[in-house]
Amino acid sequence: MEACIMDGKTMRCGAVSGLTTVVNAVSVARLVMDKTPHIYLGFQGAEAFAREHVSPSNFALLIDYTQPIKQDEKSEVLAATGGSGDSQIGTVGCVAVDRDGNLATATSTGGLVNKMVGRIGDTPVIGAGTYANSYCAVSATGRGEAVIRATVARDVAALMEYKGLSLQEAAAYVVGERVPQGTAGLVAVSASGEVTMPFNTTGMFRACATEDGYTEIGIWPTEQE
Amino acid sequence: MEACIMDGKTMRCGAVSGLTTVVNAVSVARLVMDKTPHIYLGFQGAEAFAREHVSPSNFALLIDYTQPIKQDEKSEVLAATGGSGDSQIGTVGCVAVDRDGNLATATSTGGLVNKMVGRIGDTPVIGAGTYANSYCAVSATGRGEAVIRATVARDVAALMEYKGLSLQEAAAYVVGERVPQGTAGLVAVSASGEVTMPFNTTGMFRACATEDGYTEIGIWPTEQE
Repeated sequence: MEACIMDGKTMRCGAVSGLTTVVNAVSVARLVMDKTPHIYLGFQGAEAFAREHVSPSNFALLIDYTQPIKQDEKSEVLAATGGSGDSQIGTVGCVAVDRDGNLATATSTGGLVNKMVGRIGDTPVIGAGTYANSYCAVSATGRGEAVIRATVARDVAALMEYKGLSLQEAAAYVVGERVPQGTAGLVAVSASGEVTMPFNTTGMFRACATEDGYTEIGIWPTEQE
Repeated sequence: MEACIMDGKTMRCGAVSGLTTVVNAVSVARLVMDKTPHIYLGFQGAEAFAREHVSPSNFALLIDYTQPIKQDEKSEVLAATGGSGDSQIGTVGCVAVDRDGNLATATSTGGLVNKMVGRIGDTPVIGAGTYANSYCAVSATGRGEAVIRATVARDVAALMEYKGLSLQEAAAYVVGERVPQGTAGLVAVSASGEVTMPFNTTGMFRACATEDGYTEIGIWPTEQE
């Protein structure tokens, strides 16, 4: 499991990689942010830190991610993910803005199916899978390597900050032009409450709720995307 | 040891964290780039990959980075680093441009002195300590957490790409405005061969050589910086 959290107001952030027994990896990422002078802990160090700070009820060997998936399981999982990369049934990203325009983001994932031992994806990489500042909060998913290479989450924010694009324009450009077709999607919200959830994959599980009661749930592309 | 390499022309990249016995960590980062479908391997997975692909003469337990440094050693090392963060005697960054304007960057480090086990710094994080594209190649050093938070290397390139700044202007802005005083420095080169090596620390070991025979070596600030 890998996870990352970032507070756009303070730019504080926390990330973990290589957890295998913690149920809520994102809670460990938050503890790294709150309780250490560091941003990012990996593997045994992250696991040891979690055992020190997380309550025992939060530990369970759900799936042993260090073991390769067997062939019959593999085809099933690949079918579910469209074979296109990091677990699209497993990555969970969340972005939020409060009424004062403060932004935050968090992402959690089991990572790529049948990855090499030790492989780190985009989720815990600040600026790739996860990023927030005073302009927007972004959480990305998809083929981790493509998302890292394109610094997807930071680029959405950088296009707003340095080029004056709107959130929608910035996110559409990054997903449309900066990553290969079929490799990425993201959820993002701006300080003014603009929401966008573009993806260039076949589908992306997504949902949105606003203060005034508007909700939206989707899997496949809609006309607005 | 952590290391990262990136080819600005193809945007291919490789990174490793948590190596403890390989002399040239950056060579392993390059092998991750060349020989795996991934970008980034960490800890035991990276070490196992290195043992498979790196010649035995490249292994040596130089310093056991997993062991805390004793108090007397600590003060010595802190004095040498100015106490300001990641090993400024240990991080090596290199950027290069060829006559066709192709850019590349690589960074290698032992990381922060007396860090927590498992702590990952800015060096292997694409867009933080290391980044190259068609505009410039950047390698950063300093307090890893500050460099990650500010996505230093990507921001230098993004300011050129999205805001039209020169390399010098972009790098000066990031080092001057986006990271706290005393925490960071970088070396960078643009596609047209412009070079800049700004830092906001007391000093930064640096050198530059160009095709026409110009060389520059420095530790402390010069008037031009």
